[in-house]
Amino acid sequence: MDELENLETMDYETLQEKKNDELMALLDEKNMKQLKQRMEEMNEFDVAAFLTEIGDKRMPMVFRLLSKETAAEVFANFEPPEQELIINSMTDSELAGIIEEMYVDDAVDMMEEMPANVVKRLMRTATPETRAIINQYLHYPEYSAGSIMTSEYVDLKKYMNVKESFARIRRIGEDKETIYICFVTSADRKLEGVVTVKDLLLADPDTVIEELMDRNVVFASTTEDQESVSDKFSDYDLMAMPVVDKEGRLVGIVTVDDVMDVMEQEATEDIEKMAGMLPSDAPYSRTKPLEIYKNRIPWLMFLMLSATFTSMILTSFEDMLAVVPGLVAFIPMLMGTGGNSGAQSATAVIRSLSLGDIEPSNALGIIWKEWRVALLCGLTLSLVNFGKMLLLDHWILGNAAVTVWIAATVSLSIVFIVMFAKLVGSLLPIGAEKIGLDPAVMANPLISTLTDAVSLLIYIYVAKILLHI
Amino acid sequence: MDELENLETMDYETLQEKKNDELMALLDEKNMKQLKQRMEEMNEFDVAAFLTEIGDKRMPMVFRLLSKETAAEVFANFEPPEQELIINSMTDSELAGIIEEMYVDDAVDMMEEMPANVVKRLMRTATPETRAIINQYLHYPEYSAGSIMTSEYVDLKKYMNVKESFARIRRIGEDKETIYICFVTSADRKLEGVVTVKDLLLADPDTVIEELMDRNVVFASTTEDQESVSDKFSDYDLMAMPVVDKEGRLVGIVTVDDVMDVMEQEATEDIEKMAGMLPSDAPYSRTKPLEIYKNRIPWLMFLMLSATFTSMILTSFEDMLAVVPGLVAFIPMLMGTGGNSGAQSATAVIRSLSLGDIEPSNALGIIWKEWRVALLCGLTLSLVNFGKMLLLDHWILGNAAVTVWIAATVSLSIVFIVMFAKLVGSLLPIGAEKIGLDPAVMANPLISTLTDAVSLLIYIYVAKILLHI
Repeated sequence: MDELENLETMDYETLQEKKNDELMALLDEKNMKQLKQRMEEMNEFDVAAFLTEIGDKRMPMVFRLLSKETAAEVFANFEPPEQELIINSMTDSELAGIIEEMYVDDAVDMMEEMPANVVKRLMRTATPETRAIINQYLHYPEYSAGSIMTSEYVDLKKYMNVKESFARIRRIGEDKETIYICFVTSADRKLEGVVTVKDLLLADPDTVIEELMDRNVVFASTTEDQESVSDKFSDYDLMAMPVVDKEGRLVGIVTVDDVMDVMEQEATEDIEKMAGMLPSDAPYSRTKPLEIYKNRIPWLMFLMLSATFTSMILTSFEDMLAVVPGLVAFIPMLMGTGGNSGAQSATAVIRSLSLGDIEPSNALGIIWKEWRVALLCGLTLSLVNFGKMLLLDHWILGNAAVTVWIAATVSLSIVFIVMFAKLVGSLLPIGAEKIGLDPAVMANPLISTLTDAVSLLIYIYVAKILLHI
Repeated sequence: MDELENLETMDYETLQEKKNDELMALLDEKNMKQLKQRMEEMNEFDVAAFLTEIGDKRMPMVFRLLSKETAAEVFANFEPPEQELIINSMTDSELAGIIEEMYVDDAVDMMEEMPANVVKRLMRTATPETRAIINQYLHYPEYSAGSIMTSEYVDLKKYMNVKESFARIRRIGEDKETIYICFVTSADRKLEGVVTVKDLLLADPDTVIEELMDRNVVFASTTEDQESVSDKFSDYDLMAMPVVDKEGRLVGIVTVDDVMDVMEQEATEDIEKMAGMLPSDAPYSRTKPLEIYKNRIPWLMFLMLSATFTSMILTSFEDMLAVVPGLVAFIPMLMGTGGNSGAQSATAVIRSLSLGDIEPSNALGIIWKEWRVALLCGLTLSLVNFGKMLLLDHWILGNAAVTVWIAATVSLSIVFIVMFAKLVGSLLPIGAEKIGLDPAVMANPLISTLTDAVSLLIYIYVAKILLHI
């Protein structure tokens, strides 16, 4: 029972595996009484993981063993396919019990993932009050503060004293998502301040809330973007943030656990955009190939067609390039180096913009910094390449076409290409941010297609001058 | 004063700007008394932002206006350059006051960023107890649970009752980073359970902690990677997590605000690695060009040199390619399409691995999924390209070299190249994870260099067969 006793040889993951094995054994022995008791003691996340593991056939039956409260929490921890399975195995009244026990934001999250017929059945079984709240939430724009907030918060009045406040917290606190941050509202529900349970605990029981509360509240508006909400959470180290409507009335709170999900989502979205994909709604493991195809084909198509410019350049200089054998062989390397250099700069700038580390107004400083980095990178690569072409290509591999002049042409081109790629790579995202576009779309694939064409032109003109062709 | 009153036309950011202007006016009028009062009422993050804005010359003077407690919190919210400026403007005893007021984890974070001489001075001015704790923290491996934990937590004993627990929380709670999660320890400091203030508030005052506490504690070990800590926070929706040493003794706690920083750091690190950069220690805005150069040049160099294979392939087939004019012009497009397709798959798989959405054991399922996506993408691109080459290149641009057979060669190559790129793009990260490497390094640049060479070979062999050369 007391799993912390023998810690010398264990970490948390090993302990979990051992427990899982024991549960599995109880299930195989059909010892349902013990199984139920053990599951009730466990963390809901671990129960959900165990139930997902035992397979679709046994899962609904074992899920029914859980008490109503535990069942609701375990249910909220399931992935959508398991939630759907459970919903389909339940009677309407069982379902109603679960929905009423869930936090509103969890219920809304679930609804957004379910097929229309399931949503209909869920809404039918919920009480009119719950249905009204869920409906309201479903109408806030996706990715807005309104769509991730919950209405389960503790509200106090400024004329209450500490003792009365504790009495209220004890009375209504059981089902609230957090009781540690309490929100002070006026008679017309306008947000007036915030007070923490810590303040209350450290204060005299007769102190009035008005004296204790902090009027300096960091708040969000219902339609505010969730990314801006999560930025405020990490700036101000918050645990919960009130959400107010246009009239300043408190309509809900966002808690830190939801914000962690937002942070993960937003980082994933940036990463996907940077690799030339449309952001996906669901995790990769639950996205069907056709859906993945739809997210990937637009950029692939656009980039393939844009490469027409590079083809046209190559076609029109084909005869010139044919005059000097060996020139063509280095085109892929030059384009690759340009693309990689540009992608590095773009990635660094996009991430810094999204973390608020830099602003478009810093553009000049960033260009000056990238210019110096580009010069250093370009010169290093150029020198190494010059040595490599003479030593490896000319001397060791005996490629007679690689002369000193060809090596010089390629190496000099590298300097210009890296300089160009790094400037474009840093400027495009800043420009996008400035005109209100998402800088992440100015990322690697777009920049490499652009640098491909320009790298080729640089190479051709350097060759014209150095090789007199 | 009551800034929530006129909310109709305002959001939080507008309010902040207005306040900032007012502070600036007070500073210009040298109305220090009012300025001090206003700053004491504000959130520490906003005070730090204001002080950073007023410039290095006036900042230390205005900072001195703050009370000791506010000063410590504002100090923790500064970036390292501002922290250094403040430290250099302070006497030893002022400095000691600030360090003693700071949370240990904030102090350690700061020490890690300061130059050696500043650290020496800080350590000299701290009390022996604080110095001992900070020293201990500085010795935990970077990015470990030990390095991000704090020792300011509330500990209870299981024989205490609720009333006694509240008395203890009131007595020692003032300086703790969280009082809402209390940790139950045995006489030899082993972690026995956890109890929340919510449990305490909702329980009868005479209940003994042993009956209330949850023995099912999600914990971390001091040397555990911070990424694994942050994964547990989002899985279990935690606010604080205990950290135990090898003997199971409680040595500190990690709080959710530190975990949000970790999540941001880890996402940035993944993004940097995926773009072929070494992860940076500091934000872009504070990294010097030479440092950026050092992070970027290794991969650029490696990838440039790897492109030698592509050059060798091109050189050895130069004569063959020269026989059919027009073939060379489509090489960059084919390589680009291969690189972009591979990067998409690699990015999706790397991100899913890092979020725990997929495991290396799902490899077969992932390959099957990517295979179908690749077939769909390959066929679509191939068809569109065939049409485009005949319509645009041959007919509109009048490029006689682009025959139906050349269009067929390029289009058929696209199918094979996309299939190959997507399989490699998904397999390499999974393989890396399987053998214990970081999948993020198997990202876009490496994969495009690999697909460049293979794309070229595919193109050449398809041309050999279709064009009989």
